Amino acid sequence: MTGYHDDKDQLLRRLRRVEGQVRGLHRMVDEDTYCIDVLTQVSAATKALQSVALSLLDAHLSHCVRSAIADGGSEADGKVAEASQAIARLMRA
Amino acid sequence: MTGYHDDKDQLLRRLRRVEGQVRGLHRMVDEDTYCIDVLTQVSAATKALQSVALSLLDAHLSHCVRSAIADGGSEADGKVAEASQAIARLMRA
Amino acid sequence: MTGYHDDKDQLLRRLRRVEGQVRGLHRMVDEDTYCIDVLTQVSAATKALQSVALSLLDAHLSHCVRSAIADGGSEADGKVAEASQAIARLMRA
Amino acid sequence: MTGYHDDKDQLLRRLRRVEGQVRGLHRMVDEDTYCIDVLTQVSAATKALQSVALSLLDAHLSHCVRSAIADGGSEADGKVAEASQAIARLMRA
Repeated sequence: MTGYHDDKDQLLRRLRRVEGQVRGLHRMVDEDTYCIDVLTQVSAATKALQSVALSLLDAHLSHCVRSAIADGGSEADGKVAEASQAIARLMRA
Repeated sequence: MTGYHDDKDQLLRRLRRVEGQVRGLHRMVDEDTYCIDVLTQVSAATKALQSVALSLLDAHLSHCVRSAIADGGSEADGKVAEASQAIARLMRA
Repeated sequence: MTGYHDDKDQLLRRLRRVEGQVRGLHRMVDEDTYCIDVLTQVSAATKALQSVALSLLDAHLSHCVRSAIADGGSEADGKVAEASQAIARLMRA
Repeated sequence: MTGYHDDKDQLLRRLRRVEGQVRGLHRMVDEDTYCIDVLTQVSAATKALQSVALSLLDAHLSHCVRSAIADGGSEADGKVAEASQAIARLMRA
């Protein structure tokens, strides 16, 4: 079971919305929308993606990392290291 | 004419690819892919969007801001202010 | 005991170095250094601070969050929530 | 003359304040302050640095880039390229 099991429907809806935002960006560029207006929408889509990332990360810490530790934890070190690396990738994206 | 006129085809292709990445994220969540693997793809999609933003910004500075200034510039102040605000939004996204 | 106990000396050295970078920025501005060169150093100092943040976060997850969970965990929910909020603040900084 | 000439005093004051924030971080770590509280201050210092960066960038666009373009512009391409690269470095910091 994934860490985001309880939030799965909400995550799917949010990703659908981001997909729509990116499709909207394509249409804006196709219709020669003014650069700054396109950029405003790129910021909004980026923000939406980062917010999906924060939800996934929170779910991962609350469930996957937590149960690896609670289980006695031969996997716990690996889970924490994975989470730290994922955070580093997000901060540098 | 937009600032990104010369890069339009390339921008459209890149946005299509980001749209595919976000659709892939939806599928990954739908198929209960491991959180960390989903997060890696969220980072990749975010990076691709930020790179689209940098291209748009560069085009905006190279063309829109530049021609507003070269034209004698009653609009120049406004264009520079707009660009600065867009940069601030991107850095805080 | 803090989560960063084992890395304390290294963190102190890194923060001393960031302090020196920021003092260097002050000197550059004071001596009218070219904007772009100042900006390059601002990026370097920001990167160094973000890297300190990642170390602190990793230490927090590896020690504080981990021991709160291993201890049976009435505090575990709170620790995970705190970590998620800290990550959100860093990503929006 | 630098692009930030008019904002120089304010920039110097802000950098002094960031230097104080980083020195405060060093003291917090030295006194074994709780990780999350240190992280909150790292976010604040990062935000302050990013805000200095935005001011420098705005000054650069408003003055250096602008006058290179208004001067007829053999340097204009270079100035715009430099600004775009600086923005890219800041977004990836």
